Amino acid sequence: MTTVRGFFHPKTATGASSLIPPPPWHYSGDLLTVEYRTDPARVRELLPEPLEPAEEDPGAVALVWADWQSCSGSGRELLDPVRSQYKEAFAVVRCSYGGRTYSRCVHIWVDKDFAVARGLHQGYPKKLGSLHQTRPHPFGPAPRIEAGARFGATLAASDRRLAQAVVTLREPSPTNGFVNGHPMAHHRWLPSIEKGGGLALDELVESGAASFEGGQPWVGDADLELFEAPGEELSRLEVREPIGAYYRQVGVVWDGGRLLESHTSGAA
Amino acid sequence: MTTVRGFFHPKTATGASSLIPPPPWHYSGDLLTVEYRTDPARVRELLPEPLEPAEEDPGAVALVWADWQSCSGSGRELLDPVRSQYKEAFAVVRCSYGGRTYSRCVHIWVDKDFAVARGLHQGYPKKLGSLHQTRPHPFGPAPRIEAGARFGATLAASDRRLAQAVVTLREPSPTNGFVNGHPMAHHRWLPSIEKGGGLALDELVESGAASFEGGQPWVGDADLELFEAPGEELSRLEVREPIGAYYRQVGVVWDGGRLLESHTSGAA
Amino acid sequence: MTTVRGFFHPKTATGASSLIPPPPWHYSGDLLTVEYRTDPARVRELLPEPLEPAEEDPGAVALVWADWQSCSGSGRELLDPVRSQYKEAFAVVRCSYGGRTYSRCVHIWVDKDFAVARGLHQGYPKKLGSLHQTRPHPFGPAPRIEAGARFGATLAASDRRLAQAVVTLREPSPTNGFVNGHPMAHHRWLPSIEKGGGLALDELVESGAASFEGGQPWVGDADLELFEAPGEELSRLEVREPIGAYYRQVGVVWDGGRLLESHTSGAA
Amino acid sequence: MTTVRGFFHPKTATGASSLIPPPPWHYSGDLLTVEYRTDPARVRELLPEPLEPAEEDPGAVALVWADWQSCSGSGRELLDPVRSQYKEAFAVVRCSYGGRTYSRCVHIWVDKDFAVARGLHQGYPKKLGSLHQTRPHPFGPAPRIEAGARFGATLAASDRRLAQAVVTLREPSPTNGFVNGHPMAHHRWLPSIEKGGGLALDELVESGAASFEGGQPWVGDADLELFEAPGEELSRLEVREPIGAYYRQVGVVWDGGRLLESHTSGAA
Repeated sequence: MTTVRGFFHPKTATGASSLIPPPPWHYSGDLLTVEYRTDPARVRELLPEPLEPAEEDPGAVALVWADWQSCSGSGRELLDPVRSQYKEAFAVVRCSYGGRTYSRCVHIWVDKDFAVARGLHQGYPKKLGSLHQTRPHPFGPAPRIEAGARFGATLAASDRRLAQAVVTLREPSPTNGFVNGHPMAHHRWLPSIEKGGGLALDELVESGAASFEGGQPWVGDADLELFEAPGEELSRLEVREPIGAYYRQVGVVWDGGRLLESHTSGAA
Repeated sequence: MTTVRGFFHPKTATGASSLIPPPPWHYSGDLLTVEYRTDPARVRELLPEPLEPAEEDPGAVALVWADWQSCSGSGRELLDPVRSQYKEAFAVVRCSYGGRTYSRCVHIWVDKDFAVARGLHQGYPKKLGSLHQTRPHPFGPAPRIEAGARFGATLAASDRRLAQAVVTLREPSPTNGFVNGHPMAHHRWLPSIEKGGGLALDELVESGAASFEGGQPWVGDADLELFEAPGEELSRLEVREPIGAYYRQVGVVWDGGRLLESHTSGAA
Repeated sequence: MTTVRGFFHPKTATGASSLIPPPPWHYSGDLLTVEYRTDPARVRELLPEPLEPAEEDPGAVALVWADWQSCSGSGRELLDPVRSQYKEAFAVVRCSYGGRTYSRCVHIWVDKDFAVARGLHQGYPKKLGSLHQTRPHPFGPAPRIEAGARFGATLAASDRRLAQAVVTLREPSPTNGFVNGHPMAHHRWLPSIEKGGGLALDELVESGAASFEGGQPWVGDADLELFEAPGEELSRLEVREPIGAYYRQVGVVWDGGRLLESHTSGAA
Repeated sequence: MTTVRGFFHPKTATGASSLIPPPPWHYSGDLLTVEYRTDPARVRELLPEPLEPAEEDPGAVALVWADWQSCSGSGRELLDPVRSQYKEAFAVVRCSYGGRTYSRCVHIWVDKDFAVARGLHQGYPKKLGSLHQTRPHPFGPAPRIEAGARFGATLAASDRRLAQAVVTLREPSPTNGFVNGHPMAHHRWLPSIEKGGGLALDELVESGAASFEGGQPWVGDADLELFEAPGEELSRLEVREPIGAYYRQVGVVWDGGRLLESHTSGAA
């Protein structure tokens, strides 16, 4: 009787082919966060029941760019950096479930397959994109992390630019923003293989960092532009009122989450 | 009460953001197939129970390169070809289930996110790769589809070459090979969000083309090389004995499959 | 005394590292051509003396997408297609020199380095871009080459879309258009390594196909859109009046050109 | 009489399309340098006359990975980072000319077109490649710049890995190595457009940084592997004896060079 191994596909006799290793997953990264208010109805329409809008500031959105190096517990991917480095941009809103406030990623683009696979596990609705963000540097023309420093960030998919921002730092900040600061409430959905068969997987899950360390956040202002494109709706989260923009370097460990609800129908 | 729409993530109020449209999915493509025999034990180790090795020729493998244009029923993706064209390479073996012979894809690489998402639905264990295959052309140095024509095909992932083949056509053939000619028997697996929680989705599914048209297949010979790489095991399916190589242009419609077994544990 | 070899850099003892082989260069490809009239002043401003606007129809522009397989005389690159396949989009205008009408490429984007290098030799002002065009196919949803067939073509650079077209074929045509039908008159310029030193290379060269074969051209209509982007001026060639659109498959050999004028200042 | 503008192609009425701005060019970057000795004959064969091998240690090679953010004097590219960020890997040897020791880049791969164009100006023999190097980070699993820190670096081109290194830092160092520490002596070559016409441009140029700032270099050890590939000869510079490995963050300005010799034949 054969068993196949591996946290993810493709599963093999050894498990060595798995697109991603089992958690814990370790991350070093730079976060550039732009917070603003959109029409709360545009947030609410992205929250399927039983999720409800956050009670306070229900139109708040964070658009976050992140430049990551990530690895398994062994850390070996760091030494073959094509297998550890990736970039992403994602839109986060807040919602309420069971009397608690959650963050929720409603759009996200990454540039590596292992990041797509981790998103499937965690309920992030990932697509591939092309992402860039200015990196701080101690020498030459790139910015230091200091007052007046400017960072650009861009997002494209299918050869069209979807978003671009320029963030100007003002001063150290006690926080890195508030929209992306709660545990994440995500759905994991997969359609039935049978036409008209509904969902084969229908879960509401919660997860957050198993551990976290971070540097001094900085706050500033952002110029943010969102662009329309076929098959994309990020621009529906239009900017009504800027809140602020943040820069922070962080280290994170993710080590699994918790099932909140499952409406999966179970064994055939 | 809010409902979100879309066949796949991200789900929104309109459904327009879905990474893939609902089936049927329509394909035009060129297939370059290299068939050979490997150690049958290397095939068997990739077949979890209840799958069993095919009774005849259990070590047969097909390594297939495909150059696709694909679209939804509307066909509109064809006019924005970055959203319809993709390439793939995949290894197929045969297996037996319920007294019937199935094909099964054990490794596959594609170069677009929508192809990754369709694979999740269909149970193809997709990773991203970089794929190339010579295309026939009526003029200039590229080959016609004729005796002596030579086609190259290559596969790389994470900046390493995993496979390369040169196929030389010999003559028209009654078939396009036999390994990839059965309905597919695939697993759809997703781990539980909870550590140690086993599988949240564990299905064995069957699918095949809802309709098919194809040109004259050609048969010939292949020089095939497989290379080792970290995190990849295609090279375990080492070439023991060549069978043949095939070229064919096809049109395919895929419109869902059938659940064979589910061991998903169901609602929490 | 050491000599290094190779048609292009990097030059080595063997010459095997050269980014491109010496001509002749052989090409198989599909051309999608959109012809239109822009403000003739926008063409004239791209023609440095001694070039003058074409006497007839001086505002005519061709925007051409091409999907190529190319190789040296040995043809070996065709079997490692990552080294032979590339796509390009380019804008062509006409001009007059020495009483003769020439075509001239004023903007061009390709997606491989060997194509950039060939452009440096030939005087094409190449940048990198991301290019896609619908390919005809005998089966499935992709178009046949026939009346009513529709082909999409797109161009992006630096994560922004610069142009997109949809071409609908109407009928066979005696020509593949007229704007890109003359010998090319191109400049080869390289600045002096010394600041303020002017041009180290300043040549006007002529070249064209050493041999050519082609299939039946088809003519039809195009919807063409051009988009503004930083560092790009394709959109200055705005569409005033459509002329026509063409599809043709061709085989071409390029084998060097002719120096028309050199203003290079020569040995130091 | 029309004049076209721009430091580089494509030249237009405004100059805004130029693939690169005029110098000075400003850079912030991280350098990972692996120095070793190869067979001095393999260096000598890459030095065309009048260049001669360096008198001391003529087989010394530096293989350098660099992760750059670069811009014109205006700095505006930094805010659209797809237009400022690039990575490169390059092999440097030393040579002697006019009684002086020079560094000379003999192979180089970059991942952006503007970097290719700057290389044409500066005489770097650039190809496109895929490059990755571990970045230091203050948090999480990525390394700090400290004793024992490990950095990976990889180079691929045409879907094949050409080189990979793992560098382990040991201690602060007074230098960042010695092979890449001299002014660069490069050739700028372009073949005649006419077959058999020899070189249209044949210059020996010298250049170096117009200004430089840098952090504390660190020295350590490297595991370096070079791989063979068609059309590539980096692996001829085989490792005979390791010298050392270095990590340093730098800021550089490049502002033109000096013509040492020209054998360009001049006006037609």
